[in-house]
Amino acid sequence: MSLNTYGHLFQVTTWGESHGPALGATVDGCPPGVPLAQADIQTWLDKRKPGQNKYTTQRREADEVEILSGTFEGITTGTPIQCMIRNTDQRSKDYGDIVEKFRPGHADITYWQKYGIRDYRGGGRSSARETASRVAAGGIARAALKHIAPDVKITGYMTAMGTKDINRANFDWDQIEQNPFWTPDAQAAEDWATYLDGLRKSGSSVGAIIEVTIQNCPPGIGAPVYGKLDTDLAAAMMSVNAVKGVELGEGMNAARLTGETNADEITMGANGPKFSSNHAGGILGGISTGQDITVRFAVKPTSSILTPRKTITKSGEATEIITKGRHDPCVGIRAVPVAEAMAAAVILDHILLDRAQTGGIRGPIG
Amino acid sequence: MSLNTYGHLFQVTTWGESHGPALGATVDGCPPGVPLAQADIQTWLDKRKPGQNKYTTQRREADEVEILSGTFEGITTGTPIQCMIRNTDQRSKDYGDIVEKFRPGHADITYWQKYGIRDYRGGGRSSARETASRVAAGGIARAALKHIAPDVKITGYMTAMGTKDINRANFDWDQIEQNPFWTPDAQAAEDWATYLDGLRKSGSSVGAIIEVTIQNCPPGIGAPVYGKLDTDLAAAMMSVNAVKGVELGEGMNAARLTGETNADEITMGANGPKFSSNHAGGILGGISTGQDITVRFAVKPTSSILTPRKTITKSGEATEIITKGRHDPCVGIRAVPVAEAMAAAVILDHILLDRAQTGGIRGPIG
Amino acid sequence: MSLNTYGHLFQVTTWGESHGPALGATVDGCPPGVPLAQADIQTWLDKRKPGQNKYTTQRREADEVEILSGTFEGITTGTPIQCMIRNTDQRSKDYGDIVEKFRPGHADITYWQKYGIRDYRGGGRSSARETASRVAAGGIARAALKHIAPDVKITGYMTAMGTKDINRANFDWDQIEQNPFWTPDAQAAEDWATYLDGLRKSGSSVGAIIEVTIQNCPPGIGAPVYGKLDTDLAAAMMSVNAVKGVELGEGMNAARLTGETNADEITMGANGPKFSSNHAGGILGGISTGQDITVRFAVKPTSSILTPRKTITKSGEATEIITKGRHDPCVGIRAVPVAEAMAAAVILDHILLDRAQTGGIRGPIG
Amino acid sequence: MSLNTYGHLFQVTTWGESHGPALGATVDGCPPGVPLAQADIQTWLDKRKPGQNKYTTQRREADEVEILSGTFEGITTGTPIQCMIRNTDQRSKDYGDIVEKFRPGHADITYWQKYGIRDYRGGGRSSARETASRVAAGGIARAALKHIAPDVKITGYMTAMGTKDINRANFDWDQIEQNPFWTPDAQAAEDWATYLDGLRKSGSSVGAIIEVTIQNCPPGIGAPVYGKLDTDLAAAMMSVNAVKGVELGEGMNAARLTGETNADEITMGANGPKFSSNHAGGILGGISTGQDITVRFAVKPTSSILTPRKTITKSGEATEIITKGRHDPCVGIRAVPVAEAMAAAVILDHILLDRAQTGGIRGPIG
Repeated sequence: MSLNTYGHLFQVTTWGESHGPALGATVDGCPPGVPLAQADIQTWLDKRKPGQNKYTTQRREADEVEILSGTFEGITTGTPIQCMIRNTDQRSKDYGDIVEKFRPGHADITYWQKYGIRDYRGGGRSSARETASRVAAGGIARAALKHIAPDVKITGYMTAMGTKDINRANFDWDQIEQNPFWTPDAQAAEDWATYLDGLRKSGSSVGAIIEVTIQNCPPGIGAPVYGKLDTDLAAAMMSVNAVKGVELGEGMNAARLTGETNADEITMGANGPKFSSNHAGGILGGISTGQDITVRFAVKPTSSILTPRKTITKSGEATEIITKGRHDPCVGIRAVPVAEAMAAAVILDHILLDRAQTGGIRGPIG
Repeated sequence: MSLNTYGHLFQVTTWGESHGPALGATVDGCPPGVPLAQADIQTWLDKRKPGQNKYTTQRREADEVEILSGTFEGITTGTPIQCMIRNTDQRSKDYGDIVEKFRPGHADITYWQKYGIRDYRGGGRSSARETASRVAAGGIARAALKHIAPDVKITGYMTAMGTKDINRANFDWDQIEQNPFWTPDAQAAEDWATYLDGLRKSGSSVGAIIEVTIQNCPPGIGAPVYGKLDTDLAAAMMSVNAVKGVELGEGMNAARLTGETNADEITMGANGPKFSSNHAGGILGGISTGQDITVRFAVKPTSSILTPRKTITKSGEATEIITKGRHDPCVGIRAVPVAEAMAAAVILDHILLDRAQTGGIRGPIG
Repeated sequence: MSLNTYGHLFQVTTWGESHGPALGATVDGCPPGVPLAQADIQTWLDKRKPGQNKYTTQRREADEVEILSGTFEGITTGTPIQCMIRNTDQRSKDYGDIVEKFRPGHADITYWQKYGIRDYRGGGRSSARETASRVAAGGIARAALKHIAPDVKITGYMTAMGTKDINRANFDWDQIEQNPFWTPDAQAAEDWATYLDGLRKSGSSVGAIIEVTIQNCPPGIGAPVYGKLDTDLAAAMMSVNAVKGVELGEGMNAARLTGETNADEITMGANGPKFSSNHAGGILGGISTGQDITVRFAVKPTSSILTPRKTITKSGEATEIITKGRHDPCVGIRAVPVAEAMAAAVILDHILLDRAQTGGIRGPIG
Repeated sequence: MSLNTYGHLFQVTTWGESHGPALGATVDGCPPGVPLAQADIQTWLDKRKPGQNKYTTQRREADEVEILSGTFEGITTGTPIQCMIRNTDQRSKDYGDIVEKFRPGHADITYWQKYGIRDYRGGGRSSARETASRVAAGGIARAALKHIAPDVKITGYMTAMGTKDINRANFDWDQIEQNPFWTPDAQAAEDWATYLDGLRKSGSSVGAIIEVTIQNCPPGIGAPVYGKLDTDLAAAMMSVNAVKGVELGEGMNAARLTGETNADEITMGANGPKFSSNHAGGILGGISTGQDITVRFAVKPTSSILTPRKTITKSGEATEIITKGRHDPCVGIRAVPVAEAMAAAVILDHILLDRAQTGGIRGPIG
C-alpha cells in the first residue's frame, strides 16, 4: 500500500530525494541463491549515470551503490536487499531562486499544496535522480531473471526525439549501444546529435519516445484483469517521472485498426504456437503469448529551460523564472536504462506470481 | 495483492465470468454515511448495458444489480459492499465452435496455456461482460464522491472511432448524452453512424479512443512516484479489457514538444493559482494541480469478426475460425461508462489516501 | 489493504452482516485445476451450522452456499471464487431493545462511535455469523491443499470450557467427532455437557480454549520476521470475533521456561531431521520445522446473557439491558471449524508464497 | 505483500542481518510536517541498546541511527524515511562453531531448509538485532503521534520473569524507568536481579512476559474483522523474534470467565461513556473504546545457553553444541522498548486509516 513501492512479490520501495544525504531501493521478495555482487548492480547504474556526455546533465554523481543487506558471500539469501547510493554532488546553491518561486512544469507547486513543506533545493522525489534507485532494483531483477529464466532478454531504446522518429527500416539491435541515444537507427543518431546540440545551446529541451522489447518471455505470465501484464508494465512506466503516455503493442494506434488487421493469426510451429504478426505486443487478455513483448512510452521535455517563464511565488505574487542549474536537454535519454529496469522488475514479479499460483505448469498444446 | 483488485483504500475486487451464474464487485473501504440505494448503481449499469441500440452486442442482459451487504436503510455502513449481477442471457450454444479452437486476438490461447483450463463458452474474465462489475463499483465511488467531494465531475466521451477523429472545434458537453457514441461532436456522431453500419453489416469491427475529463478535483491529490495519480489512472484504464494505450494530458504527443511549449505557466487567480494552459492534463509530479484532469485511452477492435481467420486447435492442428455469436462492431462505445467508473474509483481512492496522510490540509499560497 | 481481507496470495475478503440479505467470501488466488464442487464447501458449513444441538444458538440458518464464479465443470479456473450464503432466519424483531441501547461487551458502542451508523438488528460484521464466510473460504483452501499438499491434515478441537480443562492423558483423536464440543477427551465431553446445561438454563455463558494441530506441513514454510508463519496464524485466529489471546507451541507458558527446557534437541531420522520434543509448536524463526504445528486461542464468553446489565443509550442516559434472542452459552464450540478454516487458508497461502520465492526447493540435510 | 513489512498506511519495512554491514527501516506513509530529528529516534534506540548492564548481551553496538531521507530541516516531508544503523561489533569469530551445526531452538535449520543458504555468522533476520530497526521506526511513529494525537501515551513493562510474576498491588508507573527490567514492581526488580545473576552465571536463560498499556487512545480506532485493532496489535507483537503468545485485555484468561464477569458495564461520565471495568482491554469488536488498551506477550528463553545440546550437522551427523558468544540470559528485557515501538506504529497506522475512511468524525453519544 506504500505509495513508494511497486511489485506484488518482487517488491521494490524506493526512497531518497535529489538533495538529501542518499537514496536507494529496498528490495524484498528476491529468490534466494541468486549470484549478486555489487558489480551486477553498478553496471546498470553506470549506464544511466548523468554527465557521461554533453547530452545529459552535468551533475556529476559517482552513483556508487552499496549493498547493505540480503546477500551473503555474493549470493542472495532471500531477505530484503538494501541498495544505497550516496548523493555527492548536490551543489544546492544552484537552486537558490526556487525557494520562493514555483517552477512551471515541475512538481514544486503541487508538492507545496499537498505537503505544506518542500525541499526547495531540488525536485525531491520528483527529480530524475530518483530513477537511480529504480536502476539499482532493476539490476537485482536482472540477476534473478538470469538465474530462473535465463532466456529472457530486455532491451530498451529510443525511437523518437521530439518530432524526429527513427526509420524502422534501419532498425539494428547492434547499433543501440553504439550511440549516446540508445537508438537502433544509426542515421537517426547522427541527426539527433545535431538537433540536440542546437537545443542544448539555446537552453531548450525536447521530449522523447522510448521502447522496450522483452524477448523470450515464457507464455502464460500475467493475469486477465487488474493484474494484466500490460497493466503492470504500463503502471511501471507511467510511474517514472515525466512519462505522460504508455503503449503496449499497437498502443494508441490500435484504435485505428479493424478486427481483420489487428488480430494476429495463429499457426503451429516446431516449438509450439506461432503468430503471423504481433499487433498484440506479446500479450493477449493480460497474459504473455511467448512473442516479443513491446512497451512504449513518451517522456515530456524537462521544464528546466533558460527561457524566462511566468510563475508565482508562495505568497501569490506574479514573477518570472529561469531555471539555471544542470539539466538535460532530452531527459528521455536517461530513461532508457530506467525503462529496462522497470520491465525487468515487472517480468520477474509476474514469473514469481505465476509459479505461486500455477506451479509454472502450462496447458499443453499439440 | 489480489490480481483482481484495484485501489489502495477504496478497494474493488471484481469477480465472475461471462458465462457463469453471476458476476459482481466486492467493494471495501467506502466511507460510512453515504446515501446509496440500488438505483444509484443501476443508473450507471443501464448506461453501459448492451443491446440498447444496433451498434452494440445483441446479448440481452437485464444487468440488474443487487446490493447484498454494506448498507443499512439506504446508507453505507463502512463495511464491504457486495454488488451482484446475475447472468441471464448466456446462450452458450453460440460458442460451440471454440471448444477446441483458439480465437485469434482473444485470450483463449493464453488462458489455456496459463491455467490449463478454460470455460470455452465465452471470454471468461476477459469478456467485456466483466466491465459491468466495474460500472457497479464506479456507481458506489460516485455516490461517495458526491458525499465528500461534491464538486468533482467525471465525464467520459469518445474522441475517435477508427481513423475518424472528432473535430475539437465542435466539442459540446451537452452533445455527449445525445448520441449512441457518447461523442461531444454532433457531426462525428452522424458520420460514425454510417461508418459503423457498414462495419456491422460486413461483420467487421473497429477500435476507438475514449477520453475522460475530471473537473474540480482538488489540488494536492496523488503522490510523487509509484503512487502518482497518473500511474493509478493509467493502470485503471489499462486494466480494462482491450485497452492498449493510455495517455495523460498531452500523452504520447508530449514527446514531440519542447520545454517552452509543454510547461504550463502559472498565474494568480481570485481563488488561487491558475495556469495559462493544460498540457500537463491536471497533474504535476503525480499530484493534481486543480485543473481539469484528462486521461485518454485506445480500445482495440474486437477480434470477434465474420471473416475466417487462421488458427490452431488444442491438439495443435491448423484450422480456420469465424466468430459468430453476438458481438460489438465497436466495443469502445461501451467503454465510456466503464472509463468513468474507473476514474471515479481512482479519484475517491486518492482523496481518501490524501486525508489519511495529510489530514486534507493544503500548503497555503498567497 | 482492505480491512476485510486476509492472506497474501490466497486472498479472502469476507462480506455481509448478520441481518443483511446475504454474506459470503470472495476468494482470489486459488490455484487452477482444483476439483471443487458445492459439496466440498457445504460439508464444512454444515459442521459449523448453528442450531444442531441444544448447546448452540437456536437461530436456524440453512447456510447453503452458492458458488457464483471461479469454477468450470467442477474445477477451479484460477479466477476469483465467489461464495454466497443467503440469510434466511433473521427474525430481527428479537433485537428491538438494542436500537437505542448499547449492549455491554458487544461492538455496539464502538461501531456507533466509529461509523455513526449501525444496523441495530444485530451484530453486523462483529456477529459470529460472519464466520460462515470464513468456513466457506476454508473449504476452498482445504480443497486446494488436498490438490497440492495432500498430506497436510488440519484438526481443531476444544481443550477447555471455562475453568474445565481436558486431561491430556485422555487425548484421543477419534473422540473429536464423537461429541458436540469437538473435544478429544470423552470424559471432559460428559462433564461439559452437564456444566453447559446449567449455564444455558441460567442464561449465562462461558469462554473456551480451542487448539488446532496441523500435521505433515512441509518444512520451510513461512518467513523470518513480519511474514512469520506464527504471525499469520496468530493474526488469523485473533481476527475471529471474540478471540482475546493466541498461542503457538508453548505459548504464554514459554515465558516460564529456561533455555534448557524450551529448545527442542535435534536428531537425524530416517526421513530427515527429528526433534526430541516440540515446545516450538512446529515453527522456528517463523518457518515450519516439519513437526506438528499447534496454535491455540481463547474465546471470551458471549456477552448476550439474561442477567440485567448496566448500560447507556445513544442519548447518554443510564439504563439496563437483558439480551434476549438466540445465543450460544459457549460460542467457542462453533469456533472449532472456524479455526480449522483459518489455519487451512494460512497454510495454503504460505505454501504458495514459498513456491513463488524459492520454487519449493529445500536446502538438503544429510 | 512484502514479508518484511508491517502496517497499512504507516508502512515499515525492516532490512538487514545481524552480521551484515548495516540494518534499518524504510518507513513510508508518515504524515508531513512532523518535527523529527535524529535524536528523536536515537533516544529510543539507546533505551534498547545491548550491553548497558550485566543483564543483557555484551555485544557492544553504538546503534547510531542515520536518517537518510524523508526530512528537510528537521521536519518530515511526507516521503519515505530511511533509517540506517551500521553494525560495528560483529565479532563473527565467536560463531565459528555454527557453520555446520544447527543450534537447537534457533532458526538455523529452518533457514537452511527454506533458503538453501544461511549466513552462519549469526541469526540473520531472526536475530534480536533486527529489533533495532523496529525501535527506529517506532521512534518515528511516536513523533507522528505526538504531532497528531499528542495525548496518546504508550508504556511497556515486564510483568514476569520466568515463573516470577510481579505483584499487581505494587504497580507503580514511576518505578518502570528505575530498574534494568522495566518493571513497575520495585520488589520484583530486586528479586529478579538475584535470580538473573544466577542464571547468567550458570549460562542458562529464561523467558518473560511483557505488557504494553496504551493510554488515551481515542475511541473508534480499528475495524470489526480482519483489520481489528487487536489483530494488528497481536500480529505486531507476534512478529517479534521469540514471541510465542499474545493477549489482549483478559487474554487467555477470557476463556475462564462467564459473560456476567467479562462484559464491562457502561455508564455515562462527564466526558462521554465510561466502563465499570476493563476486561476487554480497551477494544470491543476490534475497535477502541477509549479505555486503556493492554496487550501482553510471552518471550521464550533464548536458546543460546552453555549446556551442551544434541543436534545435527548439515550433513546429517549427530553432534552436540554449546552456544558461546554474547547472549542475553533474559532476552525479554530488551523486548520492552521493541513492544512499545510496535504498539506506536500500530496505533498511528489505525489513526490514519480511520481518518481516511471516516474523516475522523465520531458518532455522538449524549
